[in-house]
Amino acid sequence: MENNSLDMERTKVAIVGMGTVGSGVARLLLDHGDRTARHAGRTLWLEQVVVRDIHKKRDADLPTGLISDDLEKITGDPEIKVVAQLIGGLEPAKTIMLRLLESGKDVVTANKALLAEHGPELFDRARDLGRTIAFEASVAGGIPIVANIGQCLSANQVTSIRAILNGTSNYILSQMEAAGLSFENGVADAKEKGFAEADPRMDVDGTDATQKLAILAHLAFGARIHWSEIPRTGIEGVSQQDIHFAESLGYRIRLLAIAQMNQSALELHVSPTLIRIGQPLGEVRGPYNAVSVVGDAVGRVFFHGQGAGRMPTASAVVADMIDTAVGRTQLTFRNLELWSDQQAPVAILDPSMASSRYFTRFMIQDQPGMLAKIAGIFGNNGISISSVIQHEPQMSKDDLVPLVIMTYNATAAAARQSLQEIEKLDSVQPGSLFLRVLDTSSL
Amino acid sequence: MENNSLDMERTKVAIVGMGTVGSGVARLLLDHGDRTARHAGRTLWLEQVVVRDIHKKRDADLPTGLISDDLEKITGDPEIKVVAQLIGGLEPAKTIMLRLLESGKDVVTANKALLAEHGPELFDRARDLGRTIAFEASVAGGIPIVANIGQCLSANQVTSIRAILNGTSNYILSQMEAAGLSFENGVADAKEKGFAEADPRMDVDGTDATQKLAILAHLAFGARIHWSEIPRTGIEGVSQQDIHFAESLGYRIRLLAIAQMNQSALELHVSPTLIRIGQPLGEVRGPYNAVSVVGDAVGRVFFHGQGAGRMPTASAVVADMIDTAVGRTQLTFRNLELWSDQQAPVAILDPSMASSRYFTRFMIQDQPGMLAKIAGIFGNNGISISSVIQHEPQMSKDDLVPLVIMTYNATAAAARQSLQEIEKLDSVQPGSLFLRVLDTSSL
Repeated sequence: MENNSLDMERTKVAIVGMGTVGSGVARLLLDHGDRTARHAGRTLWLEQVVVRDIHKKRDADLPTGLISDDLEKITGDPEIKVVAQLIGGLEPAKTIMLRLLESGKDVVTANKALLAEHGPELFDRARDLGRTIAFEASVAGGIPIVANIGQCLSANQVTSIRAILNGTSNYILSQMEAAGLSFENGVADAKEKGFAEADPRMDVDGTDATQKLAILAHLAFGARIHWSEIPRTGIEGVSQQDIHFAESLGYRIRLLAIAQMNQSALELHVSPTLIRIGQPLGEVRGPYNAVSVVGDAVGRVFFHGQGAGRMPTASAVVADMIDTAVGRTQLTFRNLELWSDQQAPVAILDPSMASSRYFTRFMIQDQPGMLAKIAGIFGNNGISISSVIQHEPQMSKDDLVPLVIMTYNATAAAARQSLQEIEKLDSVQPGSLFLRVLDTSSL
Repeated sequence: MENNSLDMERTKVAIVGMGTVGSGVARLLLDHGDRTARHAGRTLWLEQVVVRDIHKKRDADLPTGLISDDLEKITGDPEIKVVAQLIGGLEPAKTIMLRLLESGKDVVTANKALLAEHGPELFDRARDLGRTIAFEASVAGGIPIVANIGQCLSANQVTSIRAILNGTSNYILSQMEAAGLSFENGVADAKEKGFAEADPRMDVDGTDATQKLAILAHLAFGARIHWSEIPRTGIEGVSQQDIHFAESLGYRIRLLAIAQMNQSALELHVSPTLIRIGQPLGEVRGPYNAVSVVGDAVGRVFFHGQGAGRMPTASAVVADMIDTAVGRTQLTFRNLELWSDQQAPVAILDPSMASSRYFTRFMIQDQPGMLAKIAGIFGNNGISISSVIQHEPQMSKDDLVPLVIMTYNATAAAARQSLQEIEKLDSVQPGSLFLRVLDTSSL
């Protein structure tokens, strides 16, 4: 059905930014006006697209006259009500979002970095102006996790969120697991398949997942924490060998983002984590996202879907545009009090007090008594050992031998202290690995 | 926090029916007023509970004076805005719902049988009266599938829904699989564990799943079909032996509810179905529900959670009460046009034309040439065979021997014709099994 063939009320909308997601949103609005009309009871009429460089070659075929490099075409048109702001990074994204809000637009965004960095300021400003910011697309792409936590599970106190929020890292880890690739070859493979950007640093070092976790922690727990204060470890230190050892112990390794109530404080971190084979989060393969939410009434609800990509992300953006056009976003935004002082702040658990089992792997020169020395250090720090893998050196006495030790519960502080002491031992090489093991009893 | 300690706007609400779900809803409203207040921006004030027998012993501790057997206490109080109607069955549930709507109440319900049976009439009446019916709890309990399909995925044309919607059946099948129980012992076990009612007929014969599928098909496809017109097969004919054979071929058996676009017609059915081991739907165990939805923009999104039980269902009911109190339900209800003539009707696929691979199992007296005869009948009906399991009789020549044949794609008509012809053969005993095999290429 044509965009303009419907004899019903129109809400004029606009898009800023015509990259991957923007072109997907334009396609849904232009090609599928009938469906947005059916769900919104009105046509979402794409009135204007603003980009930085109008001469750049684009995938989307836009009708003539729709595209411009002048933001004033949107801010100066009072008939445009809803704007999808789809440019990444912090600036000019932030300035543009403020200009849109100040000119009376309700904004929809997929920019998690912007929200994680400047959420409080942007949300306060939107509230002051009586405007809204919808951000379903900023976390977990096509999985509607923001609406599910903020609205569908609103009768619950959420007690735990465990999530795979970075599809690039998950693809790399599952290719290392399935195809026996090294980390470097996993990264190269992800780039080749289009699952990693040219510079995938923010994906593999955990930054992207941590920014998304910060948004979910605000939403579910009212946590007032800046993403950079959340402890994070990337997947760069995980070797193919570690994946193999974990598997032999019955585990998979996934980059998990965790927010869970621990007594009355919120435990938050992002790190490669061992998950028992067969547990749903451990079985997530390829460039997917998954979120396991526990609410005190509903129990555990598990979501799995595409966390990125043009059309999954556009699906989330257009759903937000529909919600905003019909007025649902206004009701939700007003009540949720996101990043607001109205919400009782939750205490954040001191990261050094977070307790977990650990999978540790050391590279040692095979000398008599090394296992006893290392086990002794763990013991002195009050950490008990549950299993050990040590093989004979393959070639000569000089070869490095991996030593894998799985521990029972230990605080992060005790684990760090043990690591420091162990790495001081002469025959232990740099590059030891300490990974958390997910407590499956509470799954 | 106490129900009445909040210095904020109140929305008075009521509950009709104080069974399992009703008492869970009362508990959330009375004990957790702070959280509903936080999400609704107002207190949901439980003003009245109406039951048939006020003397019946109940789990929930209700404040004195709150409970009555007089519906007029609700219908006659104009300050009560939202009513959770939580009695099962068709009557008096339908009459009560109409009286609530006519007295100006917005209604929240968990009664899928009522909606599947009288949805069009009830929704038309609600629309005429300017009222709303919210029904998240009627399908898949704690999984917010109604909001996800109706709202979160509204930028998509849904192309496929494959779901496990009956937790009782799923528990029985997975216990037959894991503990080697017979169907009868699986039912007894489910009753003992509280996962099946005293009379679980509507669960094991597929009625419950079919009623839920009818609601989802209305929601996702605008399908105008009465639940009783949807072909359904229960799990009663599945033996422990069938589960074992399926497993040896690499499959699990689950009671699947399917609604999927097949060319331009909607294929609908509920039946025990073979699913490849490792596919998410095949790995759902115990009394859980799961829904796999494919949207043309978002791709596949998979949901897993508790499909029944007091608090998971209460979680869905209270979320609907919050949505109704803040006004979101009104916006959604108006736009969704459920069971409405405004929606373009979708063509329903003639069930006999639905195509699938089949898993067939016959009990035969071991006679020479039986495999050839049966294979010949399949061949004459244009059905190719992909695999066969036939073992030697265990004891004597008179023992019945199971013969398992897996076919390539066949229409339901050709499969039925083959079955009729095969069952006419002298040495084939009654009780043959024909189960669909899920096409994993489109998962």
